[in-house]
Amino acid sequence: MNYADPMEIVSTAWVNFITPFSFPLWNKTIPVLATATPEAENAPLVLGGVLLSLVVIYLASKIGGELSNNIGLPPVLGELVGGVVVGVSALHLLVFPESGADSSSSVIMSFLQSTGGLSPDAGVGVFQTQSEVVSVLAELGVIILLFEIGLESNFRELMDVGIQALLVAVVGVAVPFAAGTAGLMILFGIPAVPAIFAGAALTATSIGITSKVLSELGRLNSKEGQIILGAAVIDDVIGIIVLAVVASLAKTGKVDVSNVFYLIISASAFLLGAILLGKVFNKSFMMIAEKLKTRGSLVIPAFIFAFIMAYLAAAIHLEAILGAFAAGLVLDETDKRKELERQVCPIADMFVPIFFVTVGAKTDLGVLNPAVPSNREGLIIAIFLIVVAIAGKVVTGLAVFGQPQINRLAIGVGMIPRGEVGLVFAGVGSASGALSEATEAAIIMMVILTTFLAPPLLRFVFQEAPAVPVKESD
Amino acid sequence: MNYADPMEIVSTAWVNFITPFSFPLWNKTIPVLATATPEAENAPLVLGGVLLSLVVIYLASKIGGELSNNIGLPPVLGELVGGVVVGVSALHLLVFPESGADSSSSVIMSFLQSTGGLSPDAGVGVFQTQSEVVSVLAELGVIILLFEIGLESNFRELMDVGIQALLVAVVGVAVPFAAGTAGLMILFGIPAVPAIFAGAALTATSIGITSKVLSELGRLNSKEGQIILGAAVIDDVIGIIVLAVVASLAKTGKVDVSNVFYLIISASAFLLGAILLGKVFNKSFMMIAEKLKTRGSLVIPAFIFAFIMAYLAAAIHLEAILGAFAAGLVLDETDKRKELERQVCPIADMFVPIFFVTVGAKTDLGVLNPAVPSNREGLIIAIFLIVVAIAGKVVTGLAVFGQPQINRLAIGVGMIPRGEVGLVFAGVGSASGALSEATEAAIIMMVILTTFLAPPLLRFVFQEAPAVPVKESD
Repeated sequence: MNYADPMEIVSTAWVNFITPFSFPLWNKTIPVLATATPEAENAPLVLGGVLLSLVVIYLASKIGGELSNNIGLPPVLGELVGGVVVGVSALHLLVFPESGADSSSSVIMSFLQSTGGLSPDAGVGVFQTQSEVVSVLAELGVIILLFEIGLESNFRELMDVGIQALLVAVVGVAVPFAAGTAGLMILFGIPAVPAIFAGAALTATSIGITSKVLSELGRLNSKEGQIILGAAVIDDVIGIIVLAVVASLAKTGKVDVSNVFYLIISASAFLLGAILLGKVFNKSFMMIAEKLKTRGSLVIPAFIFAFIMAYLAAAIHLEAILGAFAAGLVLDETDKRKELERQVCPIADMFVPIFFVTVGAKTDLGVLNPAVPSNREGLIIAIFLIVVAIAGKVVTGLAVFGQPQINRLAIGVGMIPRGEVGLVFAGVGSASGALSEATEAAIIMMVILTTFLAPPLLRFVFQEAPAVPVKESD
Repeated sequence: MNYADPMEIVSTAWVNFITPFSFPLWNKTIPVLATATPEAENAPLVLGGVLLSLVVIYLASKIGGELSNNIGLPPVLGELVGGVVVGVSALHLLVFPESGADSSSSVIMSFLQSTGGLSPDAGVGVFQTQSEVVSVLAELGVIILLFEIGLESNFRELMDVGIQALLVAVVGVAVPFAAGTAGLMILFGIPAVPAIFAGAALTATSIGITSKVLSELGRLNSKEGQIILGAAVIDDVIGIIVLAVVASLAKTGKVDVSNVFYLIISASAFLLGAILLGKVFNKSFMMIAEKLKTRGSLVIPAFIFAFIMAYLAAAIHLEAILGAFAAGLVLDETDKRKELERQVCPIADMFVPIFFVTVGAKTDLGVLNPAVPSNREGLIIAIFLIVVAIAGKVVTGLAVFGQPQINRLAIGVGMIPRGEVGLVFAGVGSASGALSEATEAAIIMMVILTTFLAPPLLRFVFQEAPAVPVKESD
């Protein structure tokens, strides 16, 4: 946070620069819909804040994505960096209350206040609501991304590599967990519970980032791509079970066996159910879509299905994105797939950048600043965690058997990014009080670096194999 | 509200029916992103509420739209009715705090509480946030609708009918305002200020509903369609000015001349600026879009532009939708238009139903129930207002000159729906204390009936002319 202070001065100066040209924005409140509540009076300001946030997000994603693409890196990396630039680490254009920011540190709120007659009292509420709306849009973004990835994936091919993916996933959980926990206890003398927590944070694989990069490289339907994708899905499921176990360990000091049992059963039942549903739903979806004559006859039923699946997955303690992925996988089997993919594409173009820019914006690079003494302990632990995180996932490629032609390094590298899943561990650990500040900062650093390193590494290791042209959808 | 009570019993019964099959949803909170604040703990519940709301909205819009289309009415009417069915008037699946509903009357909240371990304390906050998110999505829906309408409209043709549209708009403001105010004062003995307020509420034209129906009838680019659209845009601008005048009259008892002057200048400057910008922006937009190589190279720059224009329009006290319409009109001139229209179509399919279903859901048909004695005075005033509202707009067709072949009745009918703009008047009037409950209820009834009558009437009057097949975009 200290690290960001000079930037805040810059931001304020910028707002002051704009102020002389301001117009008396909304100082006579005109409600947008018939209302008389105080919340509703701020509705136009919330909408204004959301519109400005979206403009910032889209500018960051396009500028970052294009620059990244121009220097031969995956566009999604540029979107993440663009998010960091506009976020809490630098420009403070897009900040969120969770990272400890309040409305006065948000440049958009300052902009609304100085040009919009937004009172500082109302600012807190408007900032809170606007941030919640942008966060929900970001989550819809990753849900739609996984739905699209599901649509693009070939279900049968994914089943073909099922055993390979399972092996990769299990190795990718076991090795980093064991090495991380043991290393922290032996080398750093950290007690068992926080060490287990940090070790558990090393197990996750961010399906969102990996699948986006694979899609951008045109490798989603390669053998390697299918194994990575399958292993990432299984990893997500294992990761959620590990989290539940570790969280109950941190809270009560012992493992809640019934909860672990419940999670394993529900996850298996959900995935099996989705597969069986696929066979049945195929024909009914086609029949319904054929009969509809008004606009959106294809996308609306598809999204109804995707959102129900996302809700169900979240409801049984899995993640919403797993449900969306399963929904895409199921619809993939239908004959209308190509048309649906074509229509989902611009919707994904609009929603997905909100997710990646938001992930970047919420990332506080301040924890990486070695000039702040309290960061140093975390930095040393972080270096250890990063080495284990990368090595522990790269070895997973060795678990693949019976595939002499396969690019084992690419599979291992594809499992590296922890992304938002790793941040969940840091968040839960911090909330349970099990993690010291240094360990938490180290986990966050490990997540940031693995997330940012994976896209260029993945592009690099795939260049060894004969290149497939980058797929451009529009 | 009294009217809806039996339905609430039905809703509660339904939730109780589902409860036995419920799973222990989210009762051990797993935050979605690294966070430890109480707001963030509810984040998965907010997302769950939004997902369920979207499922309800899409089901209502598709079922309503298809049924309406099957019996020969415009689909948008079915979406409105679908919204009424799921909204505050009936099923209570989609309710909003503004209409006086609290979290206990929301079936989705009850569902989250009984299946999701949502505590009643947290329920209030989750309900509030979820409603705000859905409301913002609905507003993005009408912004994207007007952007799409702008894209589909022909700028030159709209200019060709500029004088006609201006005449229609002015007559459509003057006649209902004069007849309504005079009638209320003379026939009902209502004091001047509330009578002027109610008269002013008669002036608006809902560009959203009219343009959607015209688009569905394939008449957007007919001469009549262009005049209606142009007049509706001008009406929106005049309506905002009238509202500002009337609101200051209600508050201070006198008219704030400087504010009226400011609004007229800013509105003219904005629209002229948008036209001039169109000439300049044309080529730069094309150049930028050509250079971009990553996904979303067309839609993202287009939405950046549309959202900036929407924000600017709102910032200078016009409406966000006017800015989005101007943005669409400007991009309409570019060569990439067809491709952009094709890509915006599924995005609009996804967002626009949220707006129409929400408008329907927020409409409380309880005020129409003659069994409730307090509704009766309002009902009688409402009948008068509805007659003036329809007659006052139908006569606008007579203002068109030099067009012997034109369907004057169609133009007049196209100006009838008041939609959300009329509700703004009722809301501001109610907030300022100028309106009695009966008059406010009468205005709401007038808005409901004109909004619901216009689509079938419009379809009917256009059938007199040789039919153009209904345009289907997918």
